[in-house]
Amino acid sequence: FKRVLVTGGAGFLGSHICRRLLAEGHEVMCMDNFFTSTRSGIADLMGHPRFEFIRHDVTEPFFCECDMIYNMACPASPVHYQWNPIKTTKVSVLGTIHMMGLAKRVKARILQASTSEIYGDPEVTPQAEEYWGHVNTIGVRSCYDEGKRVAETLAFDYLRSNNVDIRVARIFNTYGPGMHPYDGRVVSNFILQALHDEDITIYGDGSQTRSFGFVDDTVDGLIRLMNQEKTIGPVNIGNPNEFTVKELAEMIVELTGSKSKIIYLPLPGDDPKQRRPNIRRAKELLDWEPKVQLREGLLKTIEYFKALDLRKY
Amino acid sequence: FKRVLVTGGAGFLGSHICRRLLAEGHEVMCMDNFFTSTRSGIADLMGHPRFEFIRHDVTEPFFCECDMIYNMACPASPVHYQWNPIKTTKVSVLGTIHMMGLAKRVKARILQASTSEIYGDPEVTPQAEEYWGHVNTIGVRSCYDEGKRVAETLAFDYLRSNNVDIRVARIFNTYGPGMHPYDGRVVSNFILQALHDEDITIYGDGSQTRSFGFVDDTVDGLIRLMNQEKTIGPVNIGNPNEFTVKELAEMIVELTGSKSKIIYLPLPGDDPKQRRPNIRRAKELLDWEPKVQLREGLLKTIEYFKALDLRKY
Ligand SMILES: NC(=O)c1ccc[n+]([C@@H]2O[C@H](COP(=O)([O-])OP(=O)(O)OC[C@H]3O[C@@H](n4cnc5c(N)ncnc54)[C@H](O)[C@@H]3O)[C@@H](O)[C@H]2O)c1
Ligand SMILES: NC(=O)c1ccc[n+]([C@@H]2O[C@H](COP(=O)([O-])OP(=O)(O)OC[C@H]3O[C@@H](n4cnc5c(N)ncnc54)[C@H](O)[C@@H]3O)[C@@H](O)[C@H]2O)c1
Ligand SMILES: O=c1ccn([C@@H]2O[C@H](COP(=O)(O)OP(=O)(O)O)[C@@H](O)[C@H]2O)c(=O)[nH]1
Ligand SMILES: O=c1ccn([C@@H]2O[C@H](COP(=O)(O)OP(=O)(O)O)[C@@H](O)[C@H]2O)c(=O)[nH]1
Ligand SMILES: O=c1ccn([C@@H]2O[C@H](COP(=O)(O)OP(=O)(O)O)[C@@H](O)[C@H]2O)c(=O)[nH]1
Ligand SMILES: O=c1ccn([C@@H]2O[C@H](COP(=O)(O)OP(=O)(O)O)[C@@H](O)[C@H]2O)c(=O)[nH]1
Repeated sequence: FKRVLVTGGAGFLGSHICRRLLAEGHEVMCMDNFFTSTRSGIADLMGHPRFEFIRHDVTEPFFCECDMIYNMACPASPVHYQWNPIKTTKVSVLGTIHMMGLAKRVKARILQASTSEIYGDPEVTPQAEEYWGHVNTIGVRSCYDEGKRVAETLAFDYLRSNNVDIRVARIFNTYGPGMHPYDGRVVSNFILQALHDEDITIYGDGSQTRSFGFVDDTVDGLIRLMNQEKTIGPVNIGNPNEFTVKELAEMIVELTGSKSKIIYLPLPGDDPKQRRPNIRRAKELLDWEPKVQLREGLLKTIEYFKALDLRKY
Repeated sequence: FKRVLVTGGAGFLGSHICRRLLAEGHEVMCMDNFFTSTRSGIADLMGHPRFEFIRHDVTEPFFCECDMIYNMACPASPVHYQWNPIKTTKVSVLGTIHMMGLAKRVKARILQASTSEIYGDPEVTPQAEEYWGHVNTIGVRSCYDEGKRVAETLAFDYLRSNNVDIRVARIFNTYGPGMHPYDGRVVSNFILQALHDEDITIYGDGSQTRSFGFVDDTVDGLIRLMNQEKTIGPVNIGNPNEFTVKELAEMIVELTGSKSKIIYLPLPGDDPKQRRPNIRRAKELLDWEPKVQLREGLLKTIEYFKALDLRKY
């Protein structure tokens, strides 16, 4: 077994990673400050003999002995990351510096959670890893996009300068059980609205596209990237099936049998018009591709939301 | 008079700014760690009654009382900034965080020295401020380019979140008296090579272009941007006359009457193929445009290099 540190381990992706790692027999240190998550999200893990929770803010240095690091800490939904933009940038930059410094000292392998947002509002589709992106440096999404871009830079410079054993994954929009119900993202908003027969809020005309990956697929991709020797990345981890936001709304109304009407609200600043991963690298180098398509994944997510006690959030 | 802090104040642009500010009657605090500069570069200022030198690294917090900040600290030439890439990113990011924190606390106006490098290897020409750029996140220039991009992001988020009185200048290639002779930049390399009848080293085929601004013009642009109320930027500060590197080499051979031959060496990674500012904003909003053209500026720079005691570097 390995001693694995998961920063942001109480969050959506982080908690799924912790569960997978425990199931595989590893010792898991889950570090989180509960900025966008709650203790209840990892309540099932708290008593586990190989699980340890550490309350810590990754913008402060952190010392432990470990063999692997999943650096997942960072608010990920636009509502969360725009709440305190300066802090968001600090989490990406200082968090990455500290975790790279830790990885260097203890010679751990480290996976940096990057994002499709480093492609910004892309002018080519699908987006391959060679694409340099189209990002506004001074807009409302920049704290996240530019913070994540420079985190990639830091990872590669720690590799080049200090031979740190990095892995870089560019994760595309992921959904599924364990999502924060009030993260303001499109999947959680639409499902909650549909389940409560409230208006479904499409921002803009709904023609913008996203490619939604189910959480089990994303986590599987990250773990495969971490558990092989050859590919450091960046590697796109996402589902190449692309949907308009309007199609997503209609599918969720259908699957929930909701009486909700669709309404149209203004589009937020710099909202990307399209997003779709080219996953050739992940297929060839990790032998990975997504297994769960949108309809099936949404059904599971709807069940999760139905069972959720919303008073806990 | 105002109390002005100039970070990187012992460097090429910083020392010229200090001189201008002293001439205008201000009190100047020059903060520097002499990473790419020397005491000799500001020797003429050391006894001045309104000048104070503070040895400090901007990646550490810094406290003083001041009315204005020019945040210039950062290695600027590719040879310097690639020497320790992680440190370069830290200087841009932590340096900007600390200076924004200072500006917020003392309610000072702050100018952030951004760069044409945020446009990367541009796909449009000339580059206007609306252009989002074309930057590789994981290449050898990324430590500088991405560090400077996220510094812009931080400046705008300190404005939006804390109402910090920011100014952002995107400075294009600047040359002139006071340049570091061994910074590895094209102007200093070519002039030194020409003066010593050594081979002139063109990287690549010399067809790549740059637009060279004379230091007095650049400093004048920065001071104008700082001393007006309406425009926060980003504003391009550069000379729109574009030259190929080959044309530059030939002009320097001609002006020095050198016997040097031109030789061709490999092009470094991610070297931008073209660079030329659109300066409409600076013209309209700051009533600024460059006055010194390349031939005249090079003659002054050649005189400076001839008089320089190279043993001091
Ligand atoms: N979910 C997606 O669609 C998606 C897409 C691309 C990239 N990512 C990346 O994956 C990672 C996890 O995303 P997620 O969807 O699980 O988000 P999440 O918000 O559910 O999880 C992030 C976790 O990090 C924690 N955190 C935030 N700031 C912290 C700090 N300063 N110190 C310690 N912990 C801190 C939060 O409390 C939370 O538990 C993020 O880095 C995100 O940018 C996610
Ligand atoms: N000269 C240009 O062509 C050009 C073009 C675009 C942007 N800029 C920007 O203008 C600024 C000044 O550039 P320059 O040409 O004068 O470069 P320079 O290297 O001559 O000056 C930079 C100064 O900052 C100091 N410094 C570096 N790291 C520091 C640290 N950690 N703490 C304190 N001081 C530190 C150096 O010692 C030096 O005195 C930089 O921010 C640069 O990115 C310059
Ligand atoms: O186990 C460690 C080792 C380092 N760091 C932090 O990681 C950062 C980068 O460390 P590195 O050794 O790369 O550089 P330093 O800044 O110490 O030169 C520093 O702020 C360290 O405090 C950390 O948090 N845990
Ligand atoms: O209630 C909502 C929430 C989001 N969106 C849109 O759905 C897309 C995905 O938004 P999300 O916040 O989930 O993530 P993003 O991919 O933009 O980071 C964007 O175009 C949003 O404008 C929407 O139409 N209605
Ligand atoms: O006069 C000051 C005020 C702040 N800071 C530093 O600037 C950073 C950002 O300060 P801010 O108040 O924005 O945020 P904080 O991190 O303190 O919440 C912090 O690291 C402070 O230590 C500084 O160096 N000088
Ligand atoms: O001895 C040299 C130094 C630089 N260059 C080229 O001149 C241009 C400007 O380089 P510099 O380092 O001055 O600044 P940059 O604009 O690339 O940051 C680039 O295309 C370099 O490859 C060159 O041909 N010979």
